[in-house]
Amino acid sequence: MKSENIRAIKLVRSTSKLGKAPGHIGYVGLKDRMPSRISLFRYDKNDVMEFVVDSEIDSFDSSYCSLLNVIGISDESVINDVGKAFALNNLLLEDVMDAFQRPKIDEYENHIFGVFKMVYLDAQRKVIIEHIALNLVPNGVILFQETEEDVFDGVKSRIKNKHGRIRERGADYLFFALLDAIVDNYYVVLEDYRDRLELLEDEAHENPTKETAKKIQVLKKEILRIRKWVFPVKEIIVRLLQSEHPLMSKDTKLFLRDTLDHITEINEDIQLYREMATSIMEIYMTQMSNKMNEVMKVLTVIASIFIPLTFLAGIYGMNFEHMPELHYKNSYFILWGVFVAVGVGLLIFFKRKKWL
Amino acid sequence: MKSENIRAIKLVRSTSKLGKAPGHIGYVGLKDRMPSRISLFRYDKNDVMEFVVDSEIDSFDSSYCSLLNVIGISDESVINDVGKAFALNNLLLEDVMDAFQRPKIDEYENHIFGVFKMVYLDAQRKVIIEHIALNLVPNGVILFQETEEDVFDGVKSRIKNKHGRIRERGADYLFFALLDAIVDNYYVVLEDYRDRLELLEDEAHENPTKETAKKIQVLKKEILRIRKWVFPVKEIIVRLLQSEHPLMSKDTKLFLRDTLDHITEINEDIQLYREMATSIMEIYMTQMSNKMNEVMKVLTVIASIFIPLTFLAGIYGMNFEHMPELHYKNSYFILWGVFVAVGVGLLIFFKRKKWL
Amino acid sequence: MKSENIRAIKLVRSTSKLGKAPGHIGYVGLKDRMPSRISLFRYDKNDVMEFVVDSEIDSFDSSYCSLLNVIGISDESVINDVGKAFALNNLLLEDVMDAFQRPKIDEYENHIFGVFKMVYLDAQRKVIIEHIALNLVPNGVILFQETEEDVFDGVKSRIKNKHGRIRERGADYLFFALLDAIVDNYYVVLEDYRDRLELLEDEAHENPTKETAKKIQVLKKEILRIRKWVFPVKEIIVRLLQSEHPLMSKDTKLFLRDTLDHITEINEDIQLYREMATSIMEIYMTQMSNKMNEVMKVLTVIASIFIPLTFLAGIYGMNFEHMPELHYKNSYFILWGVFVAVGVGLLIFFKRKKWL
Amino acid sequence: MKSENIRAIKLVRSTSKLGKAPGHIGYVGLKDRMPSRISLFRYDKNDVMEFVVDSEIDSFDSSYCSLLNVIGISDESVINDVGKAFALNNLLLEDVMDAFQRPKIDEYENHIFGVFKMVYLDAQRKVIIEHIALNLVPNGVILFQETEEDVFDGVKSRIKNKHGRIRERGADYLFFALLDAIVDNYYVVLEDYRDRLELLEDEAHENPTKETAKKIQVLKKEILRIRKWVFPVKEIIVRLLQSEHPLMSKDTKLFLRDTLDHITEINEDIQLYREMATSIMEIYMTQMSNKMNEVMKVLTVIASIFIPLTFLAGIYGMNFEHMPELHYKNSYFILWGVFVAVGVGLLIFFKRKKWL
Amino acid sequence: MKSENIRAIKLVRSTSKLGKAPGHIGYVGLKDRMPSRISLFRYDKNDVMEFVVDSEIDSFDSSYCSLLNVIGISDESVINDVGKAFALNNLLLEDVMDAFQRPKIDEYENHIFGVFKMVYLDAQRKVIIEHIALNLVPNGVILFQETEEDVFDGVKSRIKNKHGRIRERGADYLFFALLDAIVDNYYVVLEDYRDRLELLEDEAHENPTKETAKKIQVLKKEILRIRKWVFPVKEIIVRLLQSEHPLMSKDTKLFLRDTLDHITEINEDIQLYREMATSIMEIYMTQMSNKMNEVMKVLTVIASIFIPLTFLAGIYGMNFEHMPELHYKNSYFILWGVFVAVGVGLLIFFKRKKWL
Repeated sequence: MKSENIRAIKLVRSTSKLGKAPGHIGYVGLKDRMPSRISLFRYDKNDVMEFVVDSEIDSFDSSYCSLLNVIGISDESVINDVGKAFALNNLLLEDVMDAFQRPKIDEYENHIFGVFKMVYLDAQRKVIIEHIALNLVPNGVILFQETEEDVFDGVKSRIKNKHGRIRERGADYLFFALLDAIVDNYYVVLEDYRDRLELLEDEAHENPTKETAKKIQVLKKEILRIRKWVFPVKEIIVRLLQSEHPLMSKDTKLFLRDTLDHITEINEDIQLYREMATSIMEIYMTQMSNKMNEVMKVLTVIASIFIPLTFLAGIYGMNFEHMPELHYKNSYFILWGVFVAVGVGLLIFFKRKKWL
Repeated sequence: MKSENIRAIKLVRSTSKLGKAPGHIGYVGLKDRMPSRISLFRYDKNDVMEFVVDSEIDSFDSSYCSLLNVIGISDESVINDVGKAFALNNLLLEDVMDAFQRPKIDEYENHIFGVFKMVYLDAQRKVIIEHIALNLVPNGVILFQETEEDVFDGVKSRIKNKHGRIRERGADYLFFALLDAIVDNYYVVLEDYRDRLELLEDEAHENPTKETAKKIQVLKKEILRIRKWVFPVKEIIVRLLQSEHPLMSKDTKLFLRDTLDHITEINEDIQLYREMATSIMEIYMTQMSNKMNEVMKVLTVIASIFIPLTFLAGIYGMNFEHMPELHYKNSYFILWGVFVAVGVGLLIFFKRKKWL
Repeated sequence: MKSENIRAIKLVRSTSKLGKAPGHIGYVGLKDRMPSRISLFRYDKNDVMEFVVDSEIDSFDSSYCSLLNVIGISDESVINDVGKAFALNNLLLEDVMDAFQRPKIDEYENHIFGVFKMVYLDAQRKVIIEHIALNLVPNGVILFQETEEDVFDGVKSRIKNKHGRIRERGADYLFFALLDAIVDNYYVVLEDYRDRLELLEDEAHENPTKETAKKIQVLKKEILRIRKWVFPVKEIIVRLLQSEHPLMSKDTKLFLRDTLDHITEINEDIQLYREMATSIMEIYMTQMSNKMNEVMKVLTVIASIFIPLTFLAGIYGMNFEHMPELHYKNSYFILWGVFVAVGVGLLIFFKRKKWL
Repeated sequence: MKSENIRAIKLVRSTSKLGKAPGHIGYVGLKDRMPSRISLFRYDKNDVMEFVVDSEIDSFDSSYCSLLNVIGISDESVINDVGKAFALNNLLLEDVMDAFQRPKIDEYENHIFGVFKMVYLDAQRKVIIEHIALNLVPNGVILFQETEEDVFDGVKSRIKNKHGRIRERGADYLFFALLDAIVDNYYVVLEDYRDRLELLEDEAHENPTKETAKKIQVLKKEILRIRKWVFPVKEIIVRLLQSEHPLMSKDTKLFLRDTLDHITEINEDIQLYREMATSIMEIYMTQMSNKMNEVMKVLTVIASIFIPLTFLAGIYGMNFEHMPELHYKNSYFILWGVFVAVGVGLLIFFKRKKWL
Repeated sequence: MKSENIRAIKLVRSTSKLGKAPGHIGYVGLKDRMPSRISLFRYDKNDVMEFVVDSEIDSFDSSYCSLLNVIGISDESVINDVGKAFALNNLLLEDVMDAFQRPKIDEYENHIFGVFKMVYLDAQRKVIIEHIALNLVPNGVILFQETEEDVFDGVKSRIKNKHGRIRERGADYLFFALLDAIVDNYYVVLEDYRDRLELLEDEAHENPTKETAKKIQVLKKEILRIRKWVFPVKEIIVRLLQSEHPLMSKDTKLFLRDTLDHITEINEDIQLYREMATSIMEIYMTQMSNKMNEVMKVLTVIASIFIPLTFLAGIYGMNFEHMPELHYKNSYFILWGVFVAVGVGLLIFFKRKKWL
């Protein structure tokens, strides 16, 4: 079921870190541990280079803009190496390796560090939530991600494209571009939710079954849970816009304003979809109760017509010796007339009352 | 169905722009692409001129107040030409061409740029939502709109009227007048909603059917959705009022305060209508359940009267050899008396209990 | 129906002003047009004079405190004359003549202008909503009202009373006194609502009928609608208290704090009454469902007792040749025993289950 | 009924003060008028004196800390005398005599004036709401209360106790101590509510009757109404804490912070109890509907078993000449077998479906 | 029942402290009184010492970082001794001994005092709520707790570990570490709630019984109540972060930001779980009503089929002399045909209507 993945995200948190010192570096998450792999993009207006980093990690060359991409966050030694090369705080490294960390932004003296959740649909349209850490340092960005899979293809191809604007701008623009890609992908999941909402709405109107209720509830729960990872991002971007940090230029903030617009819209849409799910549940309940009412009405009408008639028939089934009607020649036929009259009369009565 | 149009507005967003660089200029929307047409109004106290612009676009003549009206936003070359003529930012042009852009206001050094949704009813009273971009530049306003159809006839006729106050005032007043016309038209849609709410309320009270519930839900959904486009406008106007931008004069802000009053009222009304829709749904549910209760009561009364009587008749239909009552001369008639007595007794009982 | 009047208030707005320039002066409202009548109160510590003004209007004499009372707001020429005499802005005059204008306060350089809704019960306890505009100018107040009927009798009699404190104070105190009278009258309507709520609560508890639900819904709608006109007043008074306008003295603000207390209480009460209306609707639903349950229980008990008995009787009504029981002498009487035993047994069973 | 007292509190407001000038001094309330009685406590570190004041009232002696206790607020002459002795504003005296006045705090140049509602349970555990006015003046506090009954016994005994800290501190500490006693007593009423909520919760779970719903609704209404008098107190204490008034010392504010904690907790509890009341109503509805469902199931099962059997019996009660089964020797016994088989079969079917 | 413990926490408050002076020191709580035991940890980079303190208490040695751990808060003399040794305010000591005190933080000139609730699961997974007071003084922390049981094992073992970072840092880091341990343990209780929610959700979907509703309500109430103790902690940490108190270093605030992240997440989760509990209740109601509908449908179908058939059979059970059908040879068999036809016809009708 689609919601499994989201549910799983929260399962280990409380037990795995309890009693550990803050700043203790160790992987917290649900993925299998695997060795991290590091690649490095280095570009300026004229050149783009891509390296696989497997020896020592150096800090960034100041004549380029660099993107250090660390794939896999469960390998403590690699994370530690990166931390040493860029003089990163232990608290920060702890957050890098904690797949349950809530989205946040922390400004340090000479870098800006953010944690986000990348949300996307895989090939089976299952919602995947992945932990991302972005670190804006002088002359580049360090990007930590849990798996190979990501939403940064667009950014990378724009880096490779000689005429891309990204090539002419600094590390803060790269930081923004990666964040923007993350936010833009929220739309994909929201669109999936909207499609399902609309299918469910039609189902609730046209053909409500027990399954419909369950599906609405599952979707509602998914929306409740995705909200947790997406809502804090707005506050983060607002804080970035207000920040006076020297690494974040005015120019890039102009672009960030656009991202703020998007995340604002996304947050509003999440709220909207929740209200719509509630609305659809209401439609479902109404339809179910309408359907039930119809069933009950048929019983009412059939029972109300035949119960009195059966009584009448019962009377002439009695074995009293002295029942004059039994001996009249036409009583049987007259009684049939009464049967029909009573039946038709009740039918008309029900019709008038608009019960049929 | 009326809600179709609103639903459609959101359909392409996520897929069409994913992976594009911010500031990438290209049409995003649901309309067919068509060449843009440009017209230019130029007026001062004494003269009004109207041109069709089909050659080069110049920046505005400082001795007049000008309105450059670009109809059709899917023609990239024209949008680009306008952008170059007035030195407009690419991010801004992107917003101009994105029919899904949320309402917003951005202040640039020498112009103020706003995106709005024009909402109006067409001839078939269908709700039309159209993307509008307004750009206040020195000596004039650039107005981008999706189609020929708009809500600015009043403004244009006031420009043509020699004694209109608009003729004596600057570009910021023109900007305000266009914005005010957009906001005023929200009232028309709200009035349509109110009319439908009142019809539905009467229907829910007098003659609730399954269709009623559906109509209430559709209306509620429409209100939820229109809210998305109208709510942000209030914040925009508040920001305009607080702005210290040299292009926006104190005098014009006096008029904008009025527009703020209107949009505040509109937002409150949208909330009010939502609450009313919920209320009407409640009325509907109550009415349906009352109706059902009435149906059930009739069954109860008929069954409760005739089931015991049928039992009595059943007794004397038994074929025991020794049933003394069968041989008494008057038992049949006495039994009829019992039938009537029991029936009437139960009827009185039910009447007393106020079930009839 | 009581709610008619409130509903009507909103009907023309959208169509009547669409496309008009802001500041266009013309009556907007539902009352018949009639010529305005103007009267002037002029008082100081020693004297009170009352004039009917039918010639030219002068600005106020600085040695008195004056109240210019314009009754009827549909007469453009009179409103214009007043405007000229006191150099009033066109936007302000437009608000004076617009009976749909939302409550607001605007501070101008040398006057303070406020729009309010006077709400009171007429002789038939119908809720009347009337448009009021108050303009505090140097040495006096201009009061515009729609009809003769108003809530200012108390203020006027205090002016006429030689020892009234109002006689010793300036125009700002008069402004406050009129505003205070408007706010105090909101209590009357609220009291009417509370009385109706309490009647409805009793009705819902003791004797709920279909009418009860309708009455609750109507009251809830009325409360929703009155809220619209009363809620903005609190913000207005807060703004007056914060204002540094020279026409508003510190001393008078002391009194205004009291009015703020009152309007705060009124707003809280409106919220409270809404919650109570919802609560009463809940009571109604519970009572209806309890009532229905009782009806259903009776059917259940009667049917559950007699259906099995009828089956038993049916058995011995069968015509098989070989049914030994038919020929035993006492079977009929034994069967009666069974009937009674089964019936009583089921009754006891139901009693135990607390269904009776 | 317990709620009577609370309901009564609001009854006269709107009519009794309408049209009176602000600052008009006169009793507004529901108690019988009675002459006020005044007593005076005067204490310092060494001495405590208690006087009955029946002649002239003097302002406070500066070498002691004094508490002037005015019992009964309907005696205008006494209130006026006190007002004159301490140079109190008429607006203030009006609030003293208005038992409907909302809780508030007003700072004057040389005194701090507060209105509160004392809430306590009387011997019959009925909720009593009483109007209290506290006036902190130099060297003492003036305390106005409606009746003899109050919650200040603790404070008074601490004054009389030679070692009480209150004896060493100034008038502002006395003011705080009285306010603290009022706030502490809110806990008593809340505790009563909580006890009733818990009883109702058990009742709703174990033995819901029609009375249960009524009791829940009454309690909910009481909570809604008590909220009105208690909620504003938090804001008042916050304002006192922020106040720079010379009469309120820093030391006393340290104690007031504790009172703020308490009132914050009380307000949260009131909200909590409202939510719990709603929750209990839900439990009640669920239980009632479960109970009804059980009743309906029994009908269903009995009817579903016996209706088909009755039909079978009916068949063999028919009088056709040619019904072969009637003549077989064992048909009657076979039919009994069928009866049992059908009955048991249906029972098993229902059991499987978990309807029994 | 699990909720017992939580419910008990509030029971004595109102009666036990009423009328006592603020700052009155005395135990308020539900635990049995027992003598307090005091132990002292004293550590620096090189050494850790642990003492049992049973004679006089000294203030802290400035060359170490100390943790004074007072277990048991009902022993007034010990609390008073500690108070004297560190010159603590009486108001503070009152809060230490009041197990019902709401979480709070108070900054004094030379110490920072906080009250919290420690929440953990005992061996039987029962929720235990325990009162904790933390006092940050120069060179150490004073920790008051109700019982031996606590959540500080991790902190203590990190103190004992020579390489723990805590050994190199000051008293404010120790204060933070204890607070962090308290907050981290909230996750354990939340996880327990989440597990129960998920079990209940499955139960509501698959096998809803009357018990399910009760369990959901109990859980909802527990969440409502735990919220009361956990929610204020966020505000406390925010205030600590904004504090300029010299005892709280910038470095430690860096760690506190992490704790803020956690408590924010915890508060959001509590809200989320409440919404989920409401959602599950909805699922339960839907399932119950679906189940009931199914039961009713079976009755409807059986009754609707057999009632008309029984009527038919009843007709031919009548004893009229002249009933021609009775004498035809095949009428009985034809009637059987009619029975089958009507029965099958109705079945098909119901099938078509999707009632089966």
